[in-house]
Formats: sequence, structure tokens, C-alpha cells
Amino acid sequence: MEKLYWDDFEVGQVLNYGGMTISREQIVEFAREFDPQPFHVDEAAAAASPYGGLIASGWQTAGLFMRMLADNVLNKSTSMGSPGVEYLRWHKPVRPGDTLRVRHTVLEKRPSQNRPTLGLVKNRFETLNQHDEVVMEMVSIGMFLRRPAAGKDGAA
Amino acid sequence: MEKLYWDDFEVGQVLNYGGMTISREQIVEFAREFDPQPFHVDEAAAAASPYGGLIASGWQTAGLFMRMLADNVLNKSTSMGSPGVEYLRWHKPVRPGDTLRVRHTVLEKRPSQNRPTLGLVKNRFETLNQHDEVVMEMVSIGMFLRRPAAGKDGAA
Repeated sequence: MEKLYWDDFEVGQVLNYGGMTISREQIVEFAREFDPQPFHVDEAAAAASPYGGLIASGWQTAGLFMRMLADNVLNKSTSMGSPGVEYLRWHKPVRPGDTLRVRHTVLEKRPSQNRPTLGLVKNRFETLNQHDEVVMEMVSIGMFLRRPAAGKDGAA
Repeated sequence: MEKLYWDDFEVGQVLNYGGMTISREQIVEFAREFDPQPFHVDEAAAAASPYGGLIASGWQTAGLFMRMLADNVLNKSTSMGSPGVEYLRWHKPVRPGDTLRVRHTVLEKRPSQNRPTLGLVKNRFETLNQHDEVVMEMVSIGMFLRRPAAGKDGAA
């Protein structure tokens, strides 16, 4: 199957994908390594906090989102990485047993000014839980290869 | 040692902390779980890419930054989490063997409008490598408890 080029994304396009369930063990394991705050690693402290129980690090939610994006879009494309994120909001806590999916909206696209072989795509990524609540919202930029022009020997 | 309250952060304050070295194995392990793009997981594909070799997922850089922030600031404070990130830029690739540290600048602070016990702090976080290059830059908001008013029995 041919990979998606920058040319293949359409402004206004909405893609829905994913479905990853996060366990209590995954929440604690990630947080011990990257975000060892009490409400991410300590059941009793989390229960006593305003969150009322263990919640996932927002960076783990970002990581799970990224995995769904990579599996469903980027690794079927000519992705060349990302210069960054315009904004990122954690709207709701992610809790043990939650199942996450992604609603991906293509907002804008433009050719790269510096590199003629590349194009940029601005996307809104909403990560939703099993109650269809948006837990995380992000607008970020992706870089993709532009489709090479047909050679002189190509079909007219 | 008493924990840091919202009141204890000062606009203009600069904190420097961290020092975490990332290995090739850590880069591949993280990316296999969260960001399995070729230039993060496949040595040969990475060498052939414009990056010229394996680079860390930007989300792993964010996770390592978070660990340094938690160890050096948040877990010595009354941190109540974060509503989100104003922007995040990955300026330079992070490569195997790089050692990362954080330059943390307090930009603004204000009391929470909805919750009188909380205050918000806006910070710029620059993550630097061993060559003092900024590899990641982020402006984000932290929530902290405000110091309770002294009781009637307190010292004058």
C-alpha cells in the first residue's frame, strides 16, 4: 500500500481511531519512571487528594495518544516528525480501566518554506474516554514528504 | 522541611536542576511502547533518515523533563497538577548518551478564580543537553495550594 504524502491530507478531514485501555499497573509504572507525584503513584494519597483516586500522568495520556497516532496514521505515511505543539489541555483525569480513542481533525496545511520536499499539517487531536468525554486536547504540527512530481517518462 | 506553597514562587525566579542521561536502549524501549516511528526504533532506518541516526521521541524528552521537575520541585511542594501546556517546541533532536537538565523560569502567578485555596504559576521550562543547547521549550501552568492564613492563635 502506498504511503500517505502531505498531498493526501485534506483540510476538514476527520479521522477516528484507537481504543487502548489503561490499567492501574500501567499508571503506577509510568509515573514511577516519569512523574512520581503522589496522586499518580500512591493509592492512599490519591484517594485523599481532590482527584479522589489514582489518575494517570498527563504525559502518559500523551504517550498513549501518540501510540494511536503512530499506529493508525504516521506509520502509514511519510511522517518526518514534529516541530511542536501549539497547545495541550488536560480536561479530565484518566483513571484505571479507562479506554482511550482519538478524534483527529485536519485544520490547515502548507508547504514548508525552507524545505521544498516537505509540507506541514496542523491537526487538532482530541483524546476521548469510553464516556465520550474529551480528556486531552492538543493542536500540533506534523511534517510529511510532498509527493514527488511525475517524471518525464510518466503517463501524461 | 515545609513544602513550597503557591506563595513561595517568585516571578522572575530561575531554577536550574536535573542531569539525566538517556541510553539507546531507553530510547528504543520507550518508542516501542509509545511512538514506534522508524527514526525512534530502527537504527538503520534512522541512519537513512534526515536525522542521521536514532533520536528520542519528543514525548520521552517531555517525560524525562517531568521526572526532573517532580523530583526537584513538585514533590517538595503542594503541587495539585496542571491544566495544560501553552506551547511546546522540540528544537533539537535528543540522541543516545545525551544528558538533559532543566532551566525553569517563573513567568507569572495569579490566584485561582474558582478555587480560593489554589494559585496558578506559569513557568517556562527549557530542557538543555550537555552542549547547553535547548532541545525542548515549554510554557505551562502549575496549580499549587495557597498558604493557609495564620490562625487566631498564631504569632502576631
